[in-house]
Amino acid sequence: MNVKILLEYEGTAYSGWQRQKNAISIQEVLENAIKSITGEAVNVIGSGRTDAGVHALGQVANFKTQTKIPIEKLPYAINSKLPEDIVVKHAEIVPEDFHARFWAKAKIYTYTIYNAKFPSPLLKRYSYFYPRPLNVRAMKKAADMLIGTHDFASFMASNSPVKSTVRCIERLEVFQNGDIVKFEIEANGFLYNMVRIIAGTLLDVGINKKKANDIISIIKSKDRSMAGKTLPPQGLCLIKVIY
Amino acid sequence: MNVKILLEYEGTAYSGWQRQKNAISIQEVLENAIKSITGEAVNVIGSGRTDAGVHALGQVANFKTQTKIPIEKLPYAINSKLPEDIVVKHAEIVPEDFHARFWAKAKIYTYTIYNAKFPSPLLKRYSYFYPRPLNVRAMKKAADMLIGTHDFASFMASNSPVKSTVRCIERLEVFQNGDIVKFEIEANGFLYNMVRIIAGTLLDVGINKKKANDIISIIKSKDRSMAGKTLPPQGLCLIKVIY
Repeated sequence: MNVKILLEYEGTAYSGWQRQKNAISIQEVLENAIKSITGEAVNVIGSGRTDAGVHALGQVANFKTQTKIPIEKLPYAINSKLPEDIVVKHAEIVPEDFHARFWAKAKIYTYTIYNAKFPSPLLKRYSYFYPRPLNVRAMKKAADMLIGTHDFASFMASNSPVKSTVRCIERLEVFQNGDIVKFEIEANGFLYNMVRIIAGTLLDVGINKKKANDIISIIKSKDRSMAGKTLPPQGLCLIKVIY
Repeated sequence: MNVKILLEYEGTAYSGWQRQKNAISIQEVLENAIKSITGEAVNVIGSGRTDAGVHALGQVANFKTQTKIPIEKLPYAINSKLPEDIVVKHAEIVPEDFHARFWAKAKIYTYTIYNAKFPSPLLKRYSYFYPRPLNVRAMKKAADMLIGTHDFASFMASNSPVKSTVRCIERLEVFQNGDIVKFEIEANGFLYNMVRIIAGTLLDVGINKKKANDIISIIKSKDRSMAGKTLPPQGLCLIKVIY
């Protein structure tokens, strides 16, 4: 059978989602946990990669298994073999052709900036600390200009191998709550480092290094160097995958 | 001069606030940091102890110093010698007789329960995971009965050496937000483990192990064994000290 699982993880200790040599990935830890309860060498397919240090509140994955463990008991069984920073929150049987990556219609990410004079020990694992005051109104204006279907080549890490750099951002909201400035972005797909580069570009707008209207020319340029820098991974969290 | 500082810390890695042998305390780390920038062996007085693993968003402390570092630069100077999980957020010069513990009029703590089917990797450092459904309405009713001036002997770790076990709880609120159940409590003083025992008692009410009305007899009994268990430290956070 084909099993879909919902995952939460703190990415701090991992080299990212994808299995790789010489580094511990979330995929590898999950596959090992599943193997230790089912005896099967499964291939766990994630909805997409998350980079080293990136968190997930709602990552989705699937794998094929012949296990006799009842589906409602499966999360408990897998969790018993997982470290505390990775948790399976739900499991269900899905059609054989369900594929966590190919079937994903959209994803929601958040990027969190801690914007205060001094860093926060209680938030440092889950946010990017930035001490200078931000013009959130300008950031919201810039965010609005990113919404829609565009060629986001300027917002992709250089030399990423993709067929098309056109994506559709359905929603890009900027929230301010006390010392927190948070972006919530929903798109039908994301280029490599796209959310972190968008966050860096909006930050540039927030400190008046760029104007909100510059977004138009940045998109048009298809030139990575025109956009802002890639903000660090700990502020990024995969919230939800939509099927 | 006498300097008052405002501190945030993540308590996970520490044996608590108070300096002790064979374990790293927040007080010791702070005193060492101050010594390395001023050359002085200072005694940092906290508003009160926090236990091992307890966090603080707004701990207050004071110390005497002859340093020539301008007061507005002092947080940056001390922070440069502190680990990332302890941060000085403010410093100000106060009257010579200001004493962080004796002058404290009240304190605000929160205790956070993560109440969901599976634990949360992203919240586990700052909350107590409890999977069974909670009757929050009953918890609120019980909380109301704790408000006011009472002898809280039942809510103090056994054999704590104190003159009086009478305290006044000004405010005790129970918030529910999604999977989070949070207590916020303000009192003119707290007995040893008081907030964590109150949290454990309210939890017992939430699972109908105790009735809200039982609070009255628990207070009257002055018997620690009548109250609930002491919940673990990671859910507790010192929010604010009021002077």
